[in-house]
Amino acid sequence: MLTTDQFHEKIKQAIANLPVYGEPEGLYQPIAYTLEQGGKRLRPLLTLMSTQTFGGNPDKALPAAIAIEIFHNFTLLHDDIIDEAPLRRGRDTVYKKWNINTAILSGDTMFAIAYGQLCSSDTEFLPALMKVFTRTAIEVCEGQQYDIDFETSGNVNINAYINMIRLKTAVLLAASLKIGAITGGASEQDADRVYCFGENLGIAFQLQDDLLDAFGNEKVFGKKTGGDILTNKKTYLYLKALECANEKDAAKLKELYSTRNMNDEEKIGRVLEIFKRAEIESHTGKLIQQYYDLAISQLSQIKPSPEARKPLEDMASAMLVRKY
Amino acid sequence: MLTTDQFHEKIKQAIANLPVYGEPEGLYQPIAYTLEQGGKRLRPLLTLMSTQTFGGNPDKALPAAIAIEIFHNFTLLHDDIIDEAPLRRGRDTVYKKWNINTAILSGDTMFAIAYGQLCSSDTEFLPALMKVFTRTAIEVCEGQQYDIDFETSGNVNINAYINMIRLKTAVLLAASLKIGAITGGASEQDADRVYCFGENLGIAFQLQDDLLDAFGNEKVFGKKTGGDILTNKKTYLYLKALECANEKDAAKLKELYSTRNMNDEEKIGRVLEIFKRAEIESHTGKLIQQYYDLAISQLSQIKPSPEARKPLEDMASAMLVRKY
Repeated sequence: MLTTDQFHEKIKQAIANLPVYGEPEGLYQPIAYTLEQGGKRLRPLLTLMSTQTFGGNPDKALPAAIAIEIFHNFTLLHDDIIDEAPLRRGRDTVYKKWNINTAILSGDTMFAIAYGQLCSSDTEFLPALMKVFTRTAIEVCEGQQYDIDFETSGNVNINAYINMIRLKTAVLLAASLKIGAITGGASEQDADRVYCFGENLGIAFQLQDDLLDAFGNEKVFGKKTGGDILTNKKTYLYLKALECANEKDAAKLKELYSTRNMNDEEKIGRVLEIFKRAEIESHTGKLIQQYYDLAISQLSQIKPSPEARKPLEDMASAMLVRKY
Repeated sequence: MLTTDQFHEKIKQAIANLPVYGEPEGLYQPIAYTLEQGGKRLRPLLTLMSTQTFGGNPDKALPAAIAIEIFHNFTLLHDDIIDEAPLRRGRDTVYKKWNINTAILSGDTMFAIAYGQLCSSDTEFLPALMKVFTRTAIEVCEGQQYDIDFETSGNVNINAYINMIRLKTAVLLAASLKIGAITGGASEQDADRVYCFGENLGIAFQLQDDLLDAFGNEKVFGKKTGGDILTNKKTYLYLKALECANEKDAAKLKELYSTRNMNDEEKIGRVLEIFKRAEIESHTGKLIQQYYDLAISQLSQIKPSPEARKPLEDMASAMLVRKY
């Protein structure tokens, strides 16, 4: 059994060997810059772990794992234009360092390179891999569109929000696991189960991220808290608070979310007070736990032994550890 | 043997049946709008014709043909942002009608939908189709990047220009034909020959477009002439004129191409005078003929009978007919 560190080393090597250092430089330099940035490499790791769980050879899943990582980085590149984000992992985003046109075109090329990697998978698995990968790519775009729509919509409810984060975040984690399962020779049923495990885990993971954005310890969380509040993002925390808070607090919260000219710290402070009175930390924690439990119950039904699936279970806990 | 009209009907039906009318509307409406716009559907037509030439069933090539058409329209969508083009086929471009973010995200989704279509091809051919399609997608992005680079580069030569139009325009025509050949059961050698046919034809086609942009009859050409001159585009015409014109004219041409505050008609008129003195129409016509001859000589080497390949030959002539 390979360890997480060994998987990480394989991923690192494969990314370093990608054909992204060619001409025209104006196209490839931003791609190399994006892929060098690192990040947790969570998705390809899940793919390799999933393959191993099903008794497959992780090396055979490596091209598909890398395809997912490139796709993920491509979506970040285009999302950064859309969200006007100046920084990513502490460095200038591509559209800031170069320009919007470069970011569009380099992103498009990364999407194609991702498929190029996917095609080096065993032809035996290629049709199934293509199908999951492509459906997921479309869903991730749908999720991003819902996220954009929600910014200006006065009519977002909790179900719609959960569906948005499912599409924008969870399905790619789910697909990473399913693609690993397919390459590992899992039955169709098991591949679907591991997909559901990833989907529920992904929703829990995003809810946790939302929770930490409001209540996290900045040192542990790694970024400034309160960002979602300042951008008036209609997260589960906000939507649940509207539901649970008393009438006065709910009205106040709506008002705060339409205010543009208030001091940042003051706005964050006032919103957090309302969240606290509505016990939002506890509500969100419970929902995270529900999705986590659902995830684990799906995982526990796959054919491989408890021992074989333990690394995936541990990974799920690790992904949510900041909660506890 | 199916006729061009019958192929067009199949393409039209297949596009009308695409899954591009769903939610979120903000994502899918621009996609439907783009695909409804029509255009010549040249690339899918070439795919179906190529399949038929090699004795294959055009219906089997239809998903891949549609994939190419969607991909082509996706590149136009993103190119229109990059080129700040307000109109496409007489209608507002997507980024104008909606906004840049919508155009980015809808384009990304189209790219994924294109692959989704490609995956419904017979699994027997899928690995080969994926490989050509993906390599071509990357090359088209490279071509667009070179085109952008050339705008600000003082060092563009004719070879670099031809390579740019090869990547930006010709390889997709070539891939359309090769993908048709693969699906039609062509040998690898014949698939490569038909690719070279398309590549040379595509270069001739783009050179002809450049020629018509300067010297075309606006009624026949269908758009205003002189656009490339006004945007100081370093086409073959310009580069060849620098090479062939006398010293004074060459210097004048360079000066005109760095002028920003001259009346449009006057600028076009002066550049055309230099082009005429340097016999650019004739030079370009000869080069078009060379690429056309190369294309036809490649096509004539494929295994199918002269009768079977005649529709492709006729198509090649029709694509360049405006020259004569």
